[in-house]
Amino acid sequence: MSLLLPEVNELLEEKDFDSLLALIQELSPVDIIELIESLSESSQITILNLLPLDIACDVFGHMESQDAVSFLKLLSEAKAVEILNEMAPDERADLFASLTEEEAQHFLKLMETEEAHDVVELVAYPPDTAGGIMTTEFAWIPAKLTVTKAIDFLRKEKHDFDFYQVHVVQEKKLLGIVSIRELITSSPNTLVEKIIQNIPTVPTDMDQEEVAGLIAKHDIMSIPVINQKEELQGVITIDDVVDVIEDEDTEDMQMFGGSAPLTRNYIDTNAFDVAKSRFPWLAILLLTSFVSGFVIQKFSTALQAMINLAVFIPVLLNCSGNAGMQAASVVIRGLATGEIKFTHIFKIIKKEFLIGILMGIGLGVLVALRSLPVEKSLVFGLVVGISMAIGIVIATIIGTILPIIFQKLKFDPALMSGPLLTTFMDMISLFIYFSIAVKMLGI
Amino acid sequence: MSLLLPEVNELLEEKDFDSLLALIQELSPVDIIELIESLSESSQITILNLLPLDIACDVFGHMESQDAVSFLKLLSEAKAVEILNEMAPDERADLFASLTEEEAQHFLKLMETEEAHDVVELVAYPPDTAGGIMTTEFAWIPAKLTVTKAIDFLRKEKHDFDFYQVHVVQEKKLLGIVSIRELITSSPNTLVEKIIQNIPTVPTDMDQEEVAGLIAKHDIMSIPVINQKEELQGVITIDDVVDVIEDEDTEDMQMFGGSAPLTRNYIDTNAFDVAKSRFPWLAILLLTSFVSGFVIQKFSTALQAMINLAVFIPVLLNCSGNAGMQAASVVIRGLATGEIKFTHIFKIIKKEFLIGILMGIGLGVLVALRSLPVEKSLVFGLVVGISMAIGIVIATIIGTILPIIFQKLKFDPALMSGPLLTTFMDMISLFIYFSIAVKMLGI
Repeated sequence: MSLLLPEVNELLEEKDFDSLLALIQELSPVDIIELIESLSESSQITILNLLPLDIACDVFGHMESQDAVSFLKLLSEAKAVEILNEMAPDERADLFASLTEEEAQHFLKLMETEEAHDVVELVAYPPDTAGGIMTTEFAWIPAKLTVTKAIDFLRKEKHDFDFYQVHVVQEKKLLGIVSIRELITSSPNTLVEKIIQNIPTVPTDMDQEEVAGLIAKHDIMSIPVINQKEELQGVITIDDVVDVIEDEDTEDMQMFGGSAPLTRNYIDTNAFDVAKSRFPWLAILLLTSFVSGFVIQKFSTALQAMINLAVFIPVLLNCSGNAGMQAASVVIRGLATGEIKFTHIFKIIKKEFLIGILMGIGLGVLVALRSLPVEKSLVFGLVVGISMAIGIVIATIIGTILPIIFQKLKFDPALMSGPLLTTFMDMISLFIYFSIAVKMLGI
Repeated sequence: MSLLLPEVNELLEEKDFDSLLALIQELSPVDIIELIESLSESSQITILNLLPLDIACDVFGHMESQDAVSFLKLLSEAKAVEILNEMAPDERADLFASLTEEEAQHFLKLMETEEAHDVVELVAYPPDTAGGIMTTEFAWIPAKLTVTKAIDFLRKEKHDFDFYQVHVVQEKKLLGIVSIRELITSSPNTLVEKIIQNIPTVPTDMDQEEVAGLIAKHDIMSIPVINQKEELQGVITIDDVVDVIEDEDTEDMQMFGGSAPLTRNYIDTNAFDVAKSRFPWLAILLLTSFVSGFVIQKFSTALQAMINLAVFIPVLLNCSGNAGMQAASVVIRGLATGEIKFTHIFKIIKKEFLIGILMGIGLGVLVALRSLPVEKSLVFGLVVGISMAIGIVIATIIGTILPIIFQKLKFDPALMSGPLLTTFMDMISLFIYFSIAVKMLGI
């Protein structure tokens, strides 16, 4: 992209708009956006005004909606309205969701009635539901046509968007789909209803993550969205699902890392706003970790009596936290992809209990051996080793169960973050460690 | 699915295979697989033999390849070969990759020559490259045809797979694509070369994660794979990319959680194998955490002199680890989605440095206040507060830089796992804490 920049700037300076347009038309929408973003504002205006309507619509459709709003405001009102009238309905609805109420009303009044109506309808759906991500542009045909008539029907509709499946509709109800391949390759007099295929559908209020899971599971290119009367309302295509999956996985990773998900791209969010999204979590975790401090305070006489106990505090806390994180990351991810279901809970707990015991014994032996040169006492070694083993087993189980419980309580399982888990485990491990030490060492 | 089970079992008992087939044909391939998996082996054989060839191919194509191999072995050799001849080339290649060398050779001899040749060609590509995930089934037309002739051309090919774009090819070289919508809606005498569209292509050896990123970035339904002579070798469709994205995100999450990614589904992996994938990491982390133990040993006289220093060990370690995890999770995810690039490194470090300072000061003040009732000393409060602030800043920076360095060294950034980070930070935080304490408190 950066390679093109000097050439574009030269053409802009020479005002050679024909060559400029020819150059830009070779680029994909995403590349055009990257180009525009690296130009000065006046050059941006020139290029946006130069773009043919269909390309401009594609370009605005591919922008982050806040960016689309800023660029839209650089254009003349007439041009902006022209683009809004022609954009893909789902992308246009996203853009409107980023306008202020006042701006939205202003543009709606200027737009064509049908288009404006469409915006109002789509914006009404919550953005993270099937209705919120569907497009109202889809190809459909009546069931009672022959294949040839169906192709004629499609040709007459003059759709200006790409479609991959054709929906068969009777009295507004969805009967199924027909693949374009079947339309083209079936013998001309075949009735559409003979080559109809069943396809899963989703209700308008289904959560977008669930929709993405369905499309991924069934390896289908699009899924129809229906209302309670089984009438076809829109279609979600797999390319939108890719965005949903990436966004949800980003959110999960940020939550698991222990911060509130950012509402914008990380790169575009300033340091202060990022800190604001992270600080509350850290502060809560800090307050929680004071409990670990209390445990040590409570046992400070014992610690004073045998200062070498302190040597294994970071070792024990670290290991139990790590074992918990390992289990939690697998379970959180399994819940997100749908591989792990609530019905698996006992099977999984049994499995993780076994894993915890296997690893706990191994690590317990290692840490006990390490303790011998520190405090030449077999009992001390046992204290450290046993504390380690118990800590690992508990951490593994907690790392497994809590995400599943969060899911059951309709929280996001990824909220059971690594930091939350290690903070919890600190308290538990310290308490186990000192209790065993006091008992076995008689201090 | 479980609702169907009694009905299916009844039909199997009554040997009413017509009704059984009618029932199964209504299901999607994934649902058929779930049904088969919940049946006894003899019922599995009955149903697999009952399936029409096209559905059987779909069903085998949707299975995990190890499962596909086991089910294939339940069938007669003739039936198995029939299915292998007709399966989608990319799914067939995956299945062959799970066969032993001997089994593969056996089946290849029985298959049709063209199909067998195709398998050998696809299996040769590493499984995580463009060549390894592409299919060799794609629709193509010559450039010098009219739209009507092009549709005739496609009809004569009698493709038995769904396609969404048609590739325009001249002397084996890819010129671009034409959408099916354009083919259907353009006026009949339009030349194909007039409606050709540019589309990004990928070389056969591109990493699958990079391919997935390109498709997601450009919102395209498929991407052509070309060799060094720019000849079209195959096509990767977006539904395969969804699987790649999910698998890579699962791997990232498991690595970030501090274990080696599992080669199979978690649910299907036994406790011993899971433990085997986790234990080495825990053991390495344990050995590393012994360094933290050394730090405490080194400062044990100071600790003995002021036992209340121990109260803030878990607090400081926990907080710096958490701050590091927050930064690392955002950066690892940003690198995975392509949002963060190596060129951003200085911008990001500056940002995270600022974030670290903001959060460090906030948390430092909180922990200093908490320390006052423990050890009634302003200097002690300063020691704890300053250690906290410095620890947070360092953790934030390390959590940011290390994943980027890992990426630069061609390791997976997610290897910079939460556990590795917290283990590192334990050492650093302890060293800072005790050094400051010894200096400022004169112990």
